[in-house]
Amino acid sequence: MPLVLLGACTYTRVMQTVSIGVIGGSGYSGMELLRLLSGHPGFRVAFATSDRWEGKRLRDKIRDAQRFGDLAFCSVEAGLQQLQQCQVVAMATPSETSLSTLPLLLKGGLRVIDLAGSFRLKDASLYPPFYAFEHSAKALLEQAVYGLTEWFRSDIPQATLLANPGCYATAAAMAVAPFLKKQLLAEDTLVINAASGISGAGRKATEEYGYMEIEGDFRAYRLRRPHQHRPEITQTLERIAQRPVDVAFFPHLLPMKRGILCTVFAKTKAGINQAHIEEALGEVYGGEPLVEICPTPEEVRIASVAHRPHLQIAACIEGNKLTVVSALDNLLKGAAGQALQNLNLMFGYPETLGLLYGEK
Amino acid sequence: MPLVLLGACTYTRVMQTVSIGVIGGSGYSGMELLRLLSGHPGFRVAFATSDRWEGKRLRDKIRDAQRFGDLAFCSVEAGLQQLQQCQVVAMATPSETSLSTLPLLLKGGLRVIDLAGSFRLKDASLYPPFYAFEHSAKALLEQAVYGLTEWFRSDIPQATLLANPGCYATAAAMAVAPFLKKQLLAEDTLVINAASGISGAGRKATEEYGYMEIEGDFRAYRLRRPHQHRPEITQTLERIAQRPVDVAFFPHLLPMKRGILCTVFAKTKAGINQAHIEEALGEVYGGEPLVEICPTPEEVRIASVAHRPHLQIAACIEGNKLTVVSALDNLLKGAAGQALQNLNLMFGYPETLGLLYGEK
Amino acid sequence: MPLVLLGACTYTRVMQTVSIGVIGGSGYSGMELLRLLSGHPGFRVAFATSDRWEGKRLRDKIRDAQRFGDLAFCSVEAGLQQLQQCQVVAMATPSETSLSTLPLLLKGGLRVIDLAGSFRLKDASLYPPFYAFEHSAKALLEQAVYGLTEWFRSDIPQATLLANPGCYATAAAMAVAPFLKKQLLAEDTLVINAASGISGAGRKATEEYGYMEIEGDFRAYRLRRPHQHRPEITQTLERIAQRPVDVAFFPHLLPMKRGILCTVFAKTKAGINQAHIEEALGEVYGGEPLVEICPTPEEVRIASVAHRPHLQIAACIEGNKLTVVSALDNLLKGAAGQALQNLNLMFGYPETLGLLYGEK
Amino acid sequence: MPLVLLGACTYTRVMQTVSIGVIGGSGYSGMELLRLLSGHPGFRVAFATSDRWEGKRLRDKIRDAQRFGDLAFCSVEAGLQQLQQCQVVAMATPSETSLSTLPLLLKGGLRVIDLAGSFRLKDASLYPPFYAFEHSAKALLEQAVYGLTEWFRSDIPQATLLANPGCYATAAAMAVAPFLKKQLLAEDTLVINAASGISGAGRKATEEYGYMEIEGDFRAYRLRRPHQHRPEITQTLERIAQRPVDVAFFPHLLPMKRGILCTVFAKTKAGINQAHIEEALGEVYGGEPLVEICPTPEEVRIASVAHRPHLQIAACIEGNKLTVVSALDNLLKGAAGQALQNLNLMFGYPETLGLLYGEK
Repeated sequence: MPLVLLGACTYTRVMQTVSIGVIGGSGYSGMELLRLLSGHPGFRVAFATSDRWEGKRLRDKIRDAQRFGDLAFCSVEAGLQQLQQCQVVAMATPSETSLSTLPLLLKGGLRVIDLAGSFRLKDASLYPPFYAFEHSAKALLEQAVYGLTEWFRSDIPQATLLANPGCYATAAAMAVAPFLKKQLLAEDTLVINAASGISGAGRKATEEYGYMEIEGDFRAYRLRRPHQHRPEITQTLERIAQRPVDVAFFPHLLPMKRGILCTVFAKTKAGINQAHIEEALGEVYGGEPLVEICPTPEEVRIASVAHRPHLQIAACIEGNKLTVVSALDNLLKGAAGQALQNLNLMFGYPETLGLLYGEK
Repeated sequence: MPLVLLGACTYTRVMQTVSIGVIGGSGYSGMELLRLLSGHPGFRVAFATSDRWEGKRLRDKIRDAQRFGDLAFCSVEAGLQQLQQCQVVAMATPSETSLSTLPLLLKGGLRVIDLAGSFRLKDASLYPPFYAFEHSAKALLEQAVYGLTEWFRSDIPQATLLANPGCYATAAAMAVAPFLKKQLLAEDTLVINAASGISGAGRKATEEYGYMEIEGDFRAYRLRRPHQHRPEITQTLERIAQRPVDVAFFPHLLPMKRGILCTVFAKTKAGINQAHIEEALGEVYGGEPLVEICPTPEEVRIASVAHRPHLQIAACIEGNKLTVVSALDNLLKGAAGQALQNLNLMFGYPETLGLLYGEK
Repeated sequence: MPLVLLGACTYTRVMQTVSIGVIGGSGYSGMELLRLLSGHPGFRVAFATSDRWEGKRLRDKIRDAQRFGDLAFCSVEAGLQQLQQCQVVAMATPSETSLSTLPLLLKGGLRVIDLAGSFRLKDASLYPPFYAFEHSAKALLEQAVYGLTEWFRSDIPQATLLANPGCYATAAAMAVAPFLKKQLLAEDTLVINAASGISGAGRKATEEYGYMEIEGDFRAYRLRRPHQHRPEITQTLERIAQRPVDVAFFPHLLPMKRGILCTVFAKTKAGINQAHIEEALGEVYGGEPLVEICPTPEEVRIASVAHRPHLQIAACIEGNKLTVVSALDNLLKGAAGQALQNLNLMFGYPETLGLLYGEK
Repeated sequence: MPLVLLGACTYTRVMQTVSIGVIGGSGYSGMELLRLLSGHPGFRVAFATSDRWEGKRLRDKIRDAQRFGDLAFCSVEAGLQQLQQCQVVAMATPSETSLSTLPLLLKGGLRVIDLAGSFRLKDASLYPPFYAFEHSAKALLEQAVYGLTEWFRSDIPQATLLANPGCYATAAAMAVAPFLKKQLLAEDTLVINAASGISGAGRKATEEYGYMEIEGDFRAYRLRRPHQHRPEITQTLERIAQRPVDVAFFPHLLPMKRGILCTVFAKTKAGINQAHIEEALGEVYGGEPLVEICPTPEEVRIASVAHRPHLQIAACIEGNKLTVVSALDNLLKGAAGQALQNLNLMFGYPETLGLLYGEK
């Protein structure tokens, strides 16, 4: 019987293995990134740091990560001593840690992908009000490549410092951007309602995120002191629209583990109809492997994107009122999934390598 | 030892017992109304109908309803034969049933409170697009008293046909109305995002509301074919504002049993600040026993109103952007609780009798 | 029109108001007890302590506790200075606190009801293995009255130190006791499987009880180091059986807020049939206001007891294999509800006063 | 740069592609099997039937099943006309359908794997009491190979009719079997408590499995009319023990989508200790790729097996009382995962091909 080489095998023949270090491997984004890397043929994890799990094997803490063998979590200090083995480091830490550590990595000649928010905003003056810290590495803000992959794909391959977008910021900006790009929207406030599962809050042993507080509840948060993703959304949309964009943003907390749903209201210019809307979505996202355009906005659901690397999107219009609904898994397209998408581009792999089920 | 008569006892000395029939006693609103009535000293349930539970005792189906003794659910036909025993009938049926049955009750000289939507809208032409039926009793629409208690309280005591408001319509209109009444809002679109627990969908043995579909999901619905509560919201707001009001309304389905949260975005006139906002809320709702003004909108939570008859509300302003958050239990302030509030007014009882825990 | 005095009013004419202090008012049991007391006509809360909420008004933290007016939580120290105003103190603290504080209260001449476990076991030697402390007030263990109300009702009125039973211990012992009392069981191991909602774990800001850990999970716990309620169950059952009873006990953690379900397996003596079983349940619990005997064990459900003060129970037999299922709300019949049931008996009130909806 | 062929690629070079038909492709097990098959390099789905989705593309209903291209669900009749293209058919239908359809497939010379219960029991007389039908193909019962893979692996490669085990039956039998095989257990009743997520009930548009009924509830079921998996458990255990085995079995319904946890109580022979227990587990399951032996029974969790093809197991002993806890995903190791494990063996593929994340 002859051997049949399945097409599915194509991607597993790779040119090289890239050595990657992960700082912050026990937060939810870090864990998800490690899980993805464990199934990726083109990366080899050189080290992963964790305060909480120092000395424990990755495979005992990360699902299905047998491939890591006996590799154990180490301290940040120990990790930093292994940098010479690495080509790239992923930071999956709080923003403050990222801000202080990342410049050292760059100085050491490494490429860095930052899953925190410290290098996402170009305007350093936004850090004090939105992140509660003065930015200590302003010179790097300009250099940082903002990794909203579908929109700024050409910037990514040569990035040295890749700022991976926030979860809300991805869901919201990707919902609105097609219509700004196609100049379909009136210059009015965009009203972005969003709701996120609890993993978006990061791993915290606080009563606020205890089961007793979250289960059976739904509430808005970060309204009076606006959420730090709002200026990130505005920055992206203004870059695409090439004009000022006014954004109102209302995040909510959902009693579920994973997922974000955004429901965006915008006013269109006169004469725009459903055909224009669908055309815009199709033009922008029609060929995107990690974007699913749903037939109707009611079909965009958190249940359909949870544990998947995709963004779902659909829109409808009534008069000049446009409604766009988007959804993603906050740990995947909203964090580690988009990070791996960007890492693939940074190192010349196919963009979805290691991300799509059954694609091997 | 002397007897001490506690103040708490005041309300249990009543002038009369009103005899009430309940049509549709096994839907979620009907069950909740029966549960409330079982603890109310001023009403006696003459009959309760249910197709599904005909012949079963109320106390075996309704929580803590021992007071009903051996009273059993009957068919609608059997219920209609006991009308002469009743002073009032509550309709907790689908809107179509309410539309066909209610005129007969009125002709029989009964007062009626309708928990369905058939008599909420004044403009009969809105029924085909929003309720999918032609209205067959248009003459009654004008006569119907719309029972948003806090806003139209003076209409209620003499109502013969009381149209009890919808759950979303209560949460949304009560969120916006104070600011329209005080003429603080610019004439721009109101953007109302709302999310509801599953009991809002009524009792249905459909796969759509099965556990496997709902758990871990969150999605918008009734966007392209707008939700029937939208014109109800508009009607209320225009009555209060005495001008046209433009409403965009986005309902969502929450994976929980009970509760609605509304997050409303509106633009204010120039010069309005947080003090004006709080003053408006205080003036309108400050003395209301079933409205809780929270210190901040982040404190308005479904967990705080579930199983309680209250509406919670708070607002904040940034520039000319007003955000109002309101919450209620869709079966209580959003249905049976407000119905009992209205019934109390219709029959001369204290407004909160039978509604507040520990107030006896 | 003549005044009609409703029967419902009977209980609100009371002879006296008992002044009660609550130590530990911000744990889940303490909060539930305060909520119940706020609706009870016969108790006046003199003080309530809370470290976390010192200075905050009870009514702002406890649902529907408006009746408390401006009473604020105080420190334990401040509470202890108000003891002279009290006739009774409820301890709703961790067991260690209860153990050290309670003897002082007794010396001060107060009656005490202890919702912790420190005085439930008669055999002091069981404290080190099951509670991880040496008992420092062994002399009080004998004096303590164990408040499993339905079984030891006659002991309660005169109790000075009332040890309120544990939640699992109530659900499990009440499930088995009727059959031991009627001598229907063979002398074989009782196998008690139980599952509890998260409120049973108390209020803890730990990652273990975070939403991300609990949601979508189910697991057994305290198997190798057996749960402290096991000796409490054994003690109760041996007291009723008047012989040694061997208990295997398997607690599990449920992803829900409230409720315990016990499924007990026991072997009966020869010749026992379903009629004997139902007769035993009927004889023991038939007249109990807070026990519901369900027609079948499949109808015993956590959803039917949550937020209610009742225990549900039913049993079936196949050959000599008896299955008993019981359920209760761990914060009510499993803690604060049974505590109020006992307090009612201690102070001469009707046993269910303040516990049953609609009974006023 | 040289090509590096990763070891991960090994399995994707396969000898052949096996053509498989799936009858019942829109039930939860059928959907899960199709999802797994879409990622498996060695099977090609020839047809998949579904009444509810006839004419719809598989890829629009099954997650991440793009590989199916435009293949659409067809009727059973249409499926049966394509049998000549198939080497094997998987039945994922109700047991009655499987019973009537499967003999036709065998007559047509096909191999069949049955995910229903119709051919699991060897004793035809058990079908009326446990499945409520008379068995109409008794002659096939003997021929059927019972596919509890880890225990009867050698039977599977040559199976023509493979009866895939039930979910509870897999979790329970695999928990007890090692200790029976090693003859560590006394001849006493095994008490098996089990709890299952809702997907175990199959896809049903009934109120019983509606969100409003399931959320916040936990209850036992099928106690008086014992669950059909009990004789399946007994049959397996007796085959392994080579003696009669007495089983008490208590299934419960969990408010979650996926997962089963079994907590088994058994009495051991004298002199058995923890070392014997762990040795038994290690000997039997130590080398199994789809069994995880956890360090302690408290670490066996539904959250750790959900969406994974593994069974987790651990045990502890106190005196002669053995407790074993096992967990699995009812749709994977409890249904479609074990089915694919068996299909791999039936067609000469590596046993875990298509099942393990990152193993390609």
